[in-house]
Amino acid sequence: MSKARPPIVIEDVYPELDCGRYPVKREVGDRLEVWADIFKDGHDLISAVVKYRERGVRRWSEVPMRHYENDRWTAGFPLTKNTRYQYTIEAWPDEFETWRAEVGKKLEAGQRVEVELLEGREIVERAYSRSKDKRLRQTLDAFDAAGYEGRLALLRSEEVRGLMREHPDRSLSSTYGRTLEVVVDRERARYGAWYEMFPRSQGTVPGRSATFREAEARLDEISWMGFDVVYLTPIHPIGRTNRKGRNNALVAGPGDPGSPYAIGSEEGGHKAVHPELGTLEDFRRFVAAAGERGMEVALDLALQCSPDHPYLREHPDWFRRRPDGTIKYAENPPKKYEDIVNVDFYCEDWESLWREWLEVILFWVSQGVKIFRVDNPHTKPFPFWEWVIREVQERHPDVIFLSEAFTRPKVMKALAKLGFTQSYTYFTWRNTKQELTEYLTELTMDWPKEYMRPNFFANTHDILPHILQFGGRPAFMMRLVLAATLSPTYGIYSGYELCENTPRGERGTTVYYQDSEVYEYKVWDWDRPGNIKGYIRRVNEIRRENPALQELTNLSFLPAPDDNILFYGKRSGENAVFVAVNLDPHDAHDTHVQFPLWELGIGEDEPYVVEELITRREIPARGSWFWVRLDPHQNPAEIFRLRRAV
Amino acid sequence: MSKARPPIVIEDVYPELDCGRYPVKREVGDRLEVWADIFKDGHDLISAVVKYRERGVRRWSEVPMRHYENDRWTAGFPLTKNTRYQYTIEAWPDEFETWRAEVGKKLEAGQRVEVELLEGREIVERAYSRSKDKRLRQTLDAFDAAGYEGRLALLRSEEVRGLMREHPDRSLSSTYGRTLEVVVDRERARYGAWYEMFPRSQGTVPGRSATFREAEARLDEISWMGFDVVYLTPIHPIGRTNRKGRNNALVAGPGDPGSPYAIGSEEGGHKAVHPELGTLEDFRRFVAAAGERGMEVALDLALQCSPDHPYLREHPDWFRRRPDGTIKYAENPPKKYEDIVNVDFYCEDWESLWREWLEVILFWVSQGVKIFRVDNPHTKPFPFWEWVIREVQERHPDVIFLSEAFTRPKVMKALAKLGFTQSYTYFTWRNTKQELTEYLTELTMDWPKEYMRPNFFANTHDILPHILQFGGRPAFMMRLVLAATLSPTYGIYSGYELCENTPRGERGTTVYYQDSEVYEYKVWDWDRPGNIKGYIRRVNEIRRENPALQELTNLSFLPAPDDNILFYGKRSGENAVFVAVNLDPHDAHDTHVQFPLWELGIGEDEPYVVEELITRREIPARGSWFWVRLDPHQNPAEIFRLRRAV
Repeated sequence: MSKARPPIVIEDVYPELDCGRYPVKREVGDRLEVWADIFKDGHDLISAVVKYRERGVRRWSEVPMRHYENDRWTAGFPLTKNTRYQYTIEAWPDEFETWRAEVGKKLEAGQRVEVELLEGREIVERAYSRSKDKRLRQTLDAFDAAGYEGRLALLRSEEVRGLMREHPDRSLSSTYGRTLEVVVDRERARYGAWYEMFPRSQGTVPGRSATFREAEARLDEISWMGFDVVYLTPIHPIGRTNRKGRNNALVAGPGDPGSPYAIGSEEGGHKAVHPELGTLEDFRRFVAAAGERGMEVALDLALQCSPDHPYLREHPDWFRRRPDGTIKYAENPPKKYEDIVNVDFYCEDWESLWREWLEVILFWVSQGVKIFRVDNPHTKPFPFWEWVIREVQERHPDVIFLSEAFTRPKVMKALAKLGFTQSYTYFTWRNTKQELTEYLTELTMDWPKEYMRPNFFANTHDILPHILQFGGRPAFMMRLVLAATLSPTYGIYSGYELCENTPRGERGTTVYYQDSEVYEYKVWDWDRPGNIKGYIRRVNEIRRENPALQELTNLSFLPAPDDNILFYGKRSGENAVFVAVNLDPHDAHDTHVQFPLWELGIGEDEPYVVEELITRREIPARGSWFWVRLDPHQNPAEIFRLRRAV
Repeated sequence: MSKARPPIVIEDVYPELDCGRYPVKREVGDRLEVWADIFKDGHDLISAVVKYRERGVRRWSEVPMRHYENDRWTAGFPLTKNTRYQYTIEAWPDEFETWRAEVGKKLEAGQRVEVELLEGREIVERAYSRSKDKRLRQTLDAFDAAGYEGRLALLRSEEVRGLMREHPDRSLSSTYGRTLEVVVDRERARYGAWYEMFPRSQGTVPGRSATFREAEARLDEISWMGFDVVYLTPIHPIGRTNRKGRNNALVAGPGDPGSPYAIGSEEGGHKAVHPELGTLEDFRRFVAAAGERGMEVALDLALQCSPDHPYLREHPDWFRRRPDGTIKYAENPPKKYEDIVNVDFYCEDWESLWREWLEVILFWVSQGVKIFRVDNPHTKPFPFWEWVIREVQERHPDVIFLSEAFTRPKVMKALAKLGFTQSYTYFTWRNTKQELTEYLTELTMDWPKEYMRPNFFANTHDILPHILQFGGRPAFMMRLVLAATLSPTYGIYSGYELCENTPRGERGTTVYYQDSEVYEYKVWDWDRPGNIKGYIRRVNEIRRENPALQELTNLSFLPAPDDNILFYGKRSGENAVFVAVNLDPHDAHDTHVQFPLWELGIGEDEPYVVEELITRREIPARGSWFWVRLDPHQNPAEIFRLRRAV
């Protein structure tokens, strides 16, 4: 017992993730609303502030909190920069405000307050001693010269109240025990449309790799479709040892290029460009060309090696040798990945290994890449990711990391907590109304919304979902609308626009593509019949025109009695968008859906106009229940905006 | 980056209160079941232990955790002593178990595992290097002498597995970041029936104080009624200055004894006994007499002074003087408590003041008192309570503190968190089925169950609830059954057994008693007509005979379609008790209630017998729905046990 402990309890602070172990996430332009239970014994009034500062700034800024109800307090502050902010709370008994309130009650009860006035004077005098503020000295002089009524008026004046607020007595203040953090990312962390492609398959000549120059030719169309991010599978030299053949064959044929995930050959490793794609300069040119079209390039970060990677020669100590002297290739028993070996993140020389991966990332940042899609992060140590992401973002806070972890729920969440900017999700496997409603409720309304930003991929180079295999073109349109309107960030893997859906083997038995681009060069007819490029363009256009679709946590599911039709709304300020999707890609369904007219200020009997945004139709309506009929072959989904009839 | 950070995540630990800021509570004989999410990257298997120790013991004990599901792990340990325990979690990648699992999968897939066997040998060899366990040396020798099949059988044997478990490699182990605490109290902390009384009003001679000797004469009856704790309002000398008269009159009459909460006179302070009650020796005799009847005495701890308390003379610095030189009496503006002055817990000399209060408590502990009912703890600093309770319990872990804080919900909970063993609750004001169901659900199923033990007082010397004022005898019986069966700890204030219910002023306008014992000597006819002493005795007997009624968190509300009838059950092992209460003290109501036969192993078509415990009736029954009719004037409540018909 050394010093009187301050009497104020500050608890149940929001937002606070895992007792402050991890930061929460927001984007530039947001306000962070902080909440806490704050109270003390007895009847004293309390003053409280949220203290906050940007990373690297020593001095705290303060914003006063206000009492909300039931001992819960709140205040917010603006997040103006792409950086980390720290925040905490301080509160103290406010002697002068307590005095004011008590004197007020006594006066109301008709009591005289002579002695209380002298007590008030003492409080002012102490504030003067602390601050030497001349205005307080003047207040004391005026008090001494005045009579009862004058003293009362003076000490109860708003002017003196304001003066006293400037000079609080914080000697009994409590500071919340933890300093919390919020990572403030740039807007692209929250909102964007991704297009994944294998650059080597963007050309027109069969049997050889396309180059970056050839791939450039596709940027106009990708931009025309409305994408914001062009994500490239690995662009590095590919190993020869144990190279996989077509359709993951154990032995490669002579012309087979191998999986780009088997990174590294005598031509270089993670900092090199595959010579077939071109030079580093060609890559930079590609990045610039994308930039000219308003798009960013995302690279694939696969921290693994082909057996031919230079690291094996330069850093043999980074790899664990088996008793027979070989290096173990990657496996998930009984499955084996013979063309890949893993580094040992816990080898003796782990520090040099971790630093090298950092250097790899920084190298690509220096080439103009600010977005990384990380391959299988859940098979590398959590502490490594926490460290490396922080190291990168302390130098380049605008770098975005997307976690490709299709794994157990808690592991996915842990990766998001420890620093990944965005996360792949289970959306790819959620099809029914109940599945989608439950999963989206978890993502948008429960704790994950504080730290996990979903990136809804409708397909990937490794996942051709069964619904696309069976549902064909209507399913591609339906899943596109779901991905693009449920989540502000979503993506497709090239071929999606062509409704490419041939699986390797029997439909419904696998999620792999037949003749996957992972193992061979491909040439595509990007205009082939049945493509949905125009549909994609329109959906992305609607996303851009409607801020409500650029947010995550504004989702609400709305009544639609038919189990095949999912109906939901999103609102941001004046912009409100409603989406009806037929989840059955085979048959038409109809139902009434209910618009929350009461939230839009439209009366139940008032005529209004429903704009369908995909087809640009306008439908006059009245009353909250609105009939929709969704035919998968015509209109698998509709996107509505409402306006009052004139 | 100094040292490789361990790869395992340990999070969402249960029980953990406010990030470990406060201990949870249990009682001697309980097991603490600990849960946590534990996982790492990749596919390695994990081993985890709960580590625990008693306060003051340096060495941790360990108990292995088992995986439950979805990365959630659990283990429990026994709480055998009345003390604080600490606990935390440690987990590490289990190299040998991982090896076993992988080899198993490969064998299942028909793969040969020669190199894997050598890898297994390396793991065993490392364990030998660490431990020098001869049995491991023998294992290695046997391995070297064996062929493929022999090696396989050896390394996969349960014997080697057990050996390897004894010598885990914890070099990459993670220990949970916090050491958590559980306060283990004695059983009385959870379960007991309290009887509150003013000792001075336990006599037979009007107009003067009864003595401890006279009060002793009442112990037989209190014990006969089945109470476990006799709680006495303050027994100290009472001040004369500003002494209150009858019914809280501002001026006392010549014979008025004053409020026992105005503590301290020239005859002594908090360590003295009011001379009218007798001597300290008489008090100890009273305590012993209670003890002989299996009851404990609880004292009232009111940390406040009459203006005549010796402290004002001995420690003037403990009291804050007003500018006019007077000491402020207690007030809650505009209300004033002229007979009481408060100490300043934050005075300059606060350390001596806090220590003095500690000495006061320790003094009464030395007189045989192990239970304190603390008056208005919410008007004294939280840090003081946290400190003083801990100081007392480190010396005397069996001391119980009951918090009398009828204040805002978060303040009540904070007092429970920081150390109070038991808490007064809002039960006293909860009357309807919805109110009781909601409040009990919060107390028994939500976070409060970890730290807040309710003590359900049906009345207190300051609270005569409206339902007792209007409902009379039936209400007294009904509220007794509710208090005694909803909560394992409950209490009544003397006069309850007489159904004393005259308020000061109009019924329903106040909760104060007319001619309150707080301000005058009283003499009661403890056998007056209409008393419910026998009913109380029977209810307390039923509590003793049924362990299910001695627990808190085993409560569940059960179907009873009538809104006037509350129906609930409690179960502990084989003992299951069901209670139906008519919440309307005026009219009879009937309804069907549903026994959860499926939980009791009684078939829906099987005959069984319902024992009504208050009246000792037996009713044959069949099927889960059972008809009850509760007449407030006959049977306001029924308590059931079920048994199979023979």
